[in-house]
Amino acid sequence: MKAAGIVVEYNPFHNGHAYHVQQTRKKTEADCIIAVMSSSFTQRGEPAIVPKWQRASMALAGGVDLVVELPYPFAVQTAELFAHGAISILDALHCEQLCFGSEHGNIESFLQTAQRLIDEQESHNERVKHYMQQGMSYAKAYALALGDISRDALDISQPNNILGLHYVKAIREQRSRMKPETISRIVAHYHDETLPTNDQIASATSIRRFLQSGRAEDIMRYVPHITYETLQTYRMWHDWESYFPLLKYRLLTMEIDDIRRIAEVGEGIEHRLKRAIVHATSFHAFLSAVKTKRYTWTRLQRICTHILTNVTKKEMTQAIEQKRATYIRLLAMNDKGRAYLQTVKKRTALPLITNIKHIQHDPVYHIEKKATQAYLSVLPEPLLTEALRNEYATPPLR
Amino acid sequence: MKAAGIVVEYNPFHNGHAYHVQQTRKKTEADCIIAVMSSSFTQRGEPAIVPKWQRASMALAGGVDLVVELPYPFAVQTAELFAHGAISILDALHCEQLCFGSEHGNIESFLQTAQRLIDEQESHNERVKHYMQQGMSYAKAYALALGDISRDALDISQPNNILGLHYVKAIREQRSRMKPETISRIVAHYHDETLPTNDQIASATSIRRFLQSGRAEDIMRYVPHITYETLQTYRMWHDWESYFPLLKYRLLTMEIDDIRRIAEVGEGIEHRLKRAIVHATSFHAFLSAVKTKRYTWTRLQRICTHILTNVTKKEMTQAIEQKRATYIRLLAMNDKGRAYLQTVKKRTALPLITNIKHIQHDPVYHIEKKATQAYLSVLPEPLLTEALRNEYATPPLR
Repeated sequence: MKAAGIVVEYNPFHNGHAYHVQQTRKKTEADCIIAVMSSSFTQRGEPAIVPKWQRASMALAGGVDLVVELPYPFAVQTAELFAHGAISILDALHCEQLCFGSEHGNIESFLQTAQRLIDEQESHNERVKHYMQQGMSYAKAYALALGDISRDALDISQPNNILGLHYVKAIREQRSRMKPETISRIVAHYHDETLPTNDQIASATSIRRFLQSGRAEDIMRYVPHITYETLQTYRMWHDWESYFPLLKYRLLTMEIDDIRRIAEVGEGIEHRLKRAIVHATSFHAFLSAVKTKRYTWTRLQRICTHILTNVTKKEMTQAIEQKRATYIRLLAMNDKGRAYLQTVKKRTALPLITNIKHIQHDPVYHIEKKATQAYLSVLPEPLLTEALRNEYATPPLR
Repeated sequence: MKAAGIVVEYNPFHNGHAYHVQQTRKKTEADCIIAVMSSSFTQRGEPAIVPKWQRASMALAGGVDLVVELPYPFAVQTAELFAHGAISILDALHCEQLCFGSEHGNIESFLQTAQRLIDEQESHNERVKHYMQQGMSYAKAYALALGDISRDALDISQPNNILGLHYVKAIREQRSRMKPETISRIVAHYHDETLPTNDQIASATSIRRFLQSGRAEDIMRYVPHITYETLQTYRMWHDWESYFPLLKYRLLTMEIDDIRRIAEVGEGIEHRLKRAIVHATSFHAFLSAVKTKRYTWTRLQRICTHILTNVTKKEMTQAIEQKRATYIRLLAMNDKGRAYLQTVKKRTALPLITNIKHIQHDPVYHIEKKATQAYLSVLPEPLLTEALRNEYATPPLR
């Protein structure tokens, strides 16, 4: 059996994601599609709209055969470490290919640019430092530095191009034998009738906006029926505004030194956070007040997530030190996924976790657990206590 | 002008409190009654049912002339330090007398027992240690040790007797010239028609229970009209159950080492707290699960309050080191209170704070501010932001 890997958030699963799964199967001719999916918070530092179990079940319905968890220390991270975490898990599961969606759509540019970055690592790093000293954000400095070392580099101002580049780079750096492929995310001119047409595609962001503004019906054309049903059943949609009371309470009672110890906090931002929180009546207003040129919205959201989940620099550094996940946690699988697992389970490079007790002291899991408990904390009782119990008692979905 | 001091929580102000104020005026013949009142949380580790400003205005209406704040590091404390904090403020304001309610009702026993405790301090301490090593709570050990050094000691199993004893002891230890008086809290046989009769008296605890069980009308006979009105206007009554979601979120995301650093936490209770919180669906269920012989309900409530407010052993120790308040913050006064203040304001032993900016770096105020911000954190926006602004902008009520 042959497996192909994909890296996903499914926040929530929509027609574009279904297209990605279908195209991956077509392009790779794999028997089994394995998705590594962000746990409770996303790479951009947002709470996932519904818990991982609901999102994993949407994935199964959408054609994925096996869903595994990307734990918090890699999920809520810069693109580079996010990619390393995801690749380490797919590689450990012996995926032969990786297939990611990108704006660019041609794998050659990714391969060339990644190789260039590896060859010119030192001078690229220096250029990044140079631009950051001018007050730029890391993302902006990274892109400009790339332009300096390579004239015809990939356009990494596009969010899926930059992620894709880091997947390819991580494959190289981890000496994985996985073969990367990409498909174009633009489906406007696609005429295959079994696939969604352009007016059936909307971004996950715009789908979440429809939901949050009370226009749930409007998402029906953009998502598979099961996504719509799942969202109707699990009505307590998580967004930053629902966490704002916890974040505000937390920041009000934290000492400046406590904030400074939190992951990704630096350059005096702790003082800005502490001052702005007193006057902010919403998460959006708060972030707008804190925003500077150096701090992108995404980085600020990740910082807020780390504050909410109480994840410190120290424990984060320890967890990601090897740039690899330390275990594989199964969230969901169908018969095909299960059959594939049988063929690899004795030779996975990372332990396959079925009983969570075995990783209680793992630094990656320790953070993942704390973060998911923070994620669930907005649920009213007794739902919260039930969800906490289920989080550790739930076997992989079938 | 002559002032008498009283130590209060007014949670909420009821007919028994009105009686106490009237009797204090009668007994002391003071021109001005000064109440030092717990800030946002009470000595037993509970959130006050309404904020300090509302409780201070009830106090004025109930006959008090001047209300000053007992800041959190002394308010949420063992009886001994609570008393020291309160006495230090009343003494600094040159009160000539202190008048407290007690079950015993005769000041002689208080004076004798306090003197005995001071004379026999060393052997009393040893006896306390001895009983605590047998697994008893501090309160229980303290009472038994007192019995050992004095046969006819005051019955300090009664809550107001033990507080009264510590007031008298603190007066002696601080070498204050304040003269203590006590009045009996039992008013069953009192026939003065201007004073409440027994069936108009209920404890603050039972009044809060009426309110929390939706029987607000039932409290009318037990409280002055202004209390009833204030409670009807400020409907968001604070109790531990309303803080439980914050406490649970906090404990879920705290590390064991973080909990160990919190004030009053000791003897491994951090592990019990961390284990029990996952399964508890209410504050009451949580505390019942954590309760041991050594930890009284009151001490556990204070620990939970310190967790909620993020007050550490280190900062608490620093704040209470001198066993004295470091400033006097006015909450409310009438004309008489104001006139009295004029006569003493240049010779108070502690600074009288009118502008909060002057004490930003005071360790007592630092804790008090953090605690009151935590207290307000359960309010919905924009009420929370308004309350935070008013807390520091409100001049003393008139």
